[in-house]
Amino acid sequence: MASSLAKKKTQKISAKELPQRLAQARGDAELDLLITNVKLLDVITGEIYPTAIAVGGEYIVGVGLDYVGSPAKRTYDAQGAFVTPGFIDGHLHIESSMMSPFEFERATLPLGTTTAICDPHEITNVLGSKGFEWFLRSSELMHQNLFVQMSSCVPALPGFETTGSDFPLEEMKLHKDHPSVLGLAEMMNFPGVINANGEVLAKIEAFDDLNLDGHAPLLRGKALNAYLLAGIQNCHETVTIEEGREKLQKGMGLIIREGSVAKNLKTLAPLVNDFSSAQCLLCTDDRNPFEIAHEGHINFLISELINKHQVPVHVAYRLATYSAAKHFGLKRLGLVAPGKKADLVLLTNLEKVAIKEVLVGGKFVSELSLEKHVSEKLEKSRPPLQNTMSRQLLQPPELKYNLTAGTYNVIEIIPHEIITKHLTVRYDGKSFSEPDVLYMANIERYGQGLPPGLGLVKGMGLKSGALASSVAHDSHNLMVIGTNADDMAFAANTLVECGGGFVVVDQGKVQALVKLPIAGLLSLQSAEEIKSGIEVLKQAFRNQGVVLDEPFIQMAFLALPVIPTLKLTDRGLVDVTKFSFIPLFQEA
Amino acid sequence: MASSLAKKKTQKISAKELPQRLAQARGDAELDLLITNVKLLDVITGEIYPTAIAVGGEYIVGVGLDYVGSPAKRTYDAQGAFVTPGFIDGHLHIESSMMSPFEFERATLPLGTTTAICDPHEITNVLGSKGFEWFLRSSELMHQNLFVQMSSCVPALPGFETTGSDFPLEEMKLHKDHPSVLGLAEMMNFPGVINANGEVLAKIEAFDDLNLDGHAPLLRGKALNAYLLAGIQNCHETVTIEEGREKLQKGMGLIIREGSVAKNLKTLAPLVNDFSSAQCLLCTDDRNPFEIAHEGHINFLISELINKHQVPVHVAYRLATYSAAKHFGLKRLGLVAPGKKADLVLLTNLEKVAIKEVLVGGKFVSELSLEKHVSEKLEKSRPPLQNTMSRQLLQPPELKYNLTAGTYNVIEIIPHEIITKHLTVRYDGKSFSEPDVLYMANIERYGQGLPPGLGLVKGMGLKSGALASSVAHDSHNLMVIGTNADDMAFAANTLVECGGGFVVVDQGKVQALVKLPIAGLLSLQSAEEIKSGIEVLKQAFRNQGVVLDEPFIQMAFLALPVIPTLKLTDRGLVDVTKFSFIPLFQEA
Repeated sequence: MASSLAKKKTQKISAKELPQRLAQARGDAELDLLITNVKLLDVITGEIYPTAIAVGGEYIVGVGLDYVGSPAKRTYDAQGAFVTPGFIDGHLHIESSMMSPFEFERATLPLGTTTAICDPHEITNVLGSKGFEWFLRSSELMHQNLFVQMSSCVPALPGFETTGSDFPLEEMKLHKDHPSVLGLAEMMNFPGVINANGEVLAKIEAFDDLNLDGHAPLLRGKALNAYLLAGIQNCHETVTIEEGREKLQKGMGLIIREGSVAKNLKTLAPLVNDFSSAQCLLCTDDRNPFEIAHEGHINFLISELINKHQVPVHVAYRLATYSAAKHFGLKRLGLVAPGKKADLVLLTNLEKVAIKEVLVGGKFVSELSLEKHVSEKLEKSRPPLQNTMSRQLLQPPELKYNLTAGTYNVIEIIPHEIITKHLTVRYDGKSFSEPDVLYMANIERYGQGLPPGLGLVKGMGLKSGALASSVAHDSHNLMVIGTNADDMAFAANTLVECGGGFVVVDQGKVQALVKLPIAGLLSLQSAEEIKSGIEVLKQAFRNQGVVLDEPFIQMAFLALPVIPTLKLTDRGLVDVTKFSFIPLFQEA
Repeated sequence: MASSLAKKKTQKISAKELPQRLAQARGDAELDLLITNVKLLDVITGEIYPTAIAVGGEYIVGVGLDYVGSPAKRTYDAQGAFVTPGFIDGHLHIESSMMSPFEFERATLPLGTTTAICDPHEITNVLGSKGFEWFLRSSELMHQNLFVQMSSCVPALPGFETTGSDFPLEEMKLHKDHPSVLGLAEMMNFPGVINANGEVLAKIEAFDDLNLDGHAPLLRGKALNAYLLAGIQNCHETVTIEEGREKLQKGMGLIIREGSVAKNLKTLAPLVNDFSSAQCLLCTDDRNPFEIAHEGHINFLISELINKHQVPVHVAYRLATYSAAKHFGLKRLGLVAPGKKADLVLLTNLEKVAIKEVLVGGKFVSELSLEKHVSEKLEKSRPPLQNTMSRQLLQPPELKYNLTAGTYNVIEIIPHEIITKHLTVRYDGKSFSEPDVLYMANIERYGQGLPPGLGLVKGMGLKSGALASSVAHDSHNLMVIGTNADDMAFAANTLVECGGGFVVVDQGKVQALVKLPIAGLLSLQSAEEIKSGIEVLKQAFRNQGVVLDEPFIQMAFLALPVIPTLKLTDRGLVDVTKFSFIPLFQEA
């Protein structure tokens, strides 16, 4: 099946529309919008100069002072504001915002993110094609350019976790020609690529004519070479500077991430300069509503690069615009130039990324009434609303630890990292040799009736009660951490009954609950309501002693068996250095 | 018809081949070639560092010192040489070299040009699809990556010249999926694009999913905006720095040209720096065998940038490699990195572009015996060898000037430029008010029996006899310049009889003749023989007073009615500022 990037959305002005746009460009027809009195930050030459921007329909038909005074349906005096191209998020999972795509759009478009390249692999792990297709339908209803990469690893690690559904190549192929699908989403199974696993290479072969996104934490040397040889073109999982340098040298697109937990800007910023900038991009990967509200989105990353990490202004903006568009072959995005989509950010201060107005497809975002349309679009998109917590209520005795004296394999949380440490901790029959070791269970929720995966975790600080979550990457079984089996079961069952979310319980009482009724991952609430809910949640877990800033996000990654080092799936403890199960009890 | 850049040659390692290459990358299988002791000029980061290059089949499977000592069929000690990616010529007409594609390959591969993106519009003007298809067949037999853009303007200016054939969209579409076709060749009819000519926009629409090459000398402001809006992505015709800056600012790929006549390196080099380099490329456009032999090819352009125009080494090499590959969407070219084609240049000195060895597809060019295979490949390619000079012998009286006293429109040649000046010169019945005004005729040679187009030209310096050529852009009718009708007819007829070429005659005698039997454009000789022939030619025209270095090349452009200012086609004088015919005799 021949596909082509050229057939994807935003790539083309239709043959029917073109003559009218040409007439507007020439000055022979009235413009739809003329923006005057702007200073353009040019991400090709690095210069800043005064200009005017002529818009026809969704496109910039011309740039230049020669349009000043031209007839236009509307002339907007930008009062000396700066203008840059709209920002592109090179890789993210919208599910991490807990928002529907429409609420996400409402929250991030005003921050300048006019394009987002998402991988809906969270919802696809829960609902398979039904979840993926909802994202495709949603993308058709949005102003933001939402591209939906084809989730490549559902489940993330076959045989190591139970998912709600798989997403086999045959189903993936059905959606390949959708105008929102830009390519294959992060190929997390890098060992499969490197070792020429047939099923994995078949996926690459099938999407080789589009983009092939990577995921290769700590991958170096010959293994990295093999991964790149297969055609993988980028990585957003780089955590050390030497690793980043090697990836750049080997031609990989370096997508620099600043998520809610994984934060790589500071480490990787020294690699970014005028020359290398063409090969560097920005992404948020996993950013929660709290950080989106308090810090921002791609606008925050640009500001951090400039103000904290000494990256020149023109370089920082290039990463979020031109470099990203070039990397993904998006011909009509990433520049303020004739023929590009009129996705623009107007700013009163470039260094501070002080946004005055955002335009998407030639429309002012402030005038789109995004908030008003969220529920209507949500309905139109036909979201999957069934309760996905398909299991019997958990009985406390199912959490059979039966601890005896000996050595145990324990997961240690590293604050603000998604990788973990693998500890071995002694238990003397009464207590552990290390403080703060808690019970953790990963409970299958897809109707298979499997027993819980049991583990032990250090670093949470919880003193009483339990926390439970239906967000646990990438299979999203029910994750519970607690001090006792009764509260753990109660927390889990609270989520089973309400369709999923985050809960904090103590001594048989719910202290705080955020419901996530769509797939146990997404809220039906507004960004503000979600944020308030999370604030209540934060207060509750702090009351019970939790020392982490983001225990739910960190807990969610404790289940992800493709990120080192020790993780817990519903099937048990996984040693990610060896991709094999290991027992909880190591030796007597 | 959906096409895709991904389906073009060099873009993909086959699914069948990939497992073996992966094994070589991992170090689990013997390498085909290991190059040790090299210093890599990294065109992503700008650094230079020691490394080793592991090659499997046609591809680089890995880069890094970790391969040193690995088992390999052959290990090559580069003795500390530098290595860069093979050079890419972003736009050229191989016909200007007068060589067959195989002879061109033999002449330019050893100079580092591993990829050439050509537009065979000269031969297509003469022979239509038959000429174009020969280039496609030739590209299949070459080691050099020859991409063949789809000639978009045959004839260059419909209604203004007679060609041997046209090349309508229906025929173009037949070849669109050929693996060597990367897109639409230079769209010279920029007025047609800007003014939304239906036929022109249909061509753009048909090739919009591939690349769309531009040609827009001196185009600025709103007209340039319209041209870009249609999707045109580059220009190699930029002659002033302000024009170049505007084209860069507006997102156009700036293809900097240094041909045999049109030389833009010096003018445009100041626009090139670390930041803008991602958007700048190099091309030769029209380079004759004399300059290829004496100066070089893309290697010469790189050297000039570094040594004459103060462009940093890493930037100069980037233009000829990474920037070009990115611009055209060539995923496996332009870098020395895993998964890229093993097209490499080994150099003993980067500043001087001192080439030690060139590799193409993992093979040493010095070992390919290119010379030995030229004639065999030529035969295999089935070149069109019929005499294309389809006309009766010219009788001197057909050159009916019948000059009477008055003012005449005269073409003035500007040395080393392809644009001309439009002069008006008085004739008093005996002589012209300006010195050095000669007779010029453009004689239709495609069997239409049309009378010659007559003109007058200044700036050649010819004192006696005549020059004739069957190379006259782009329709390649017979161009003759002379001091008298007898020698002009004799020169023309010499070429009619031999199938075309260049000739210098004086007083009824041939002084020098270079035969170009393929379409009247290309020689069957070797590069060296062509060069010697041209040297004899140069001596002959100098003996007759010619003051230009390259009169035949300049004469060839006197016919091109898409380059300003005044030109002569077989139908008459064309005012290129107005795209209209004007009379030779202006007023009494």
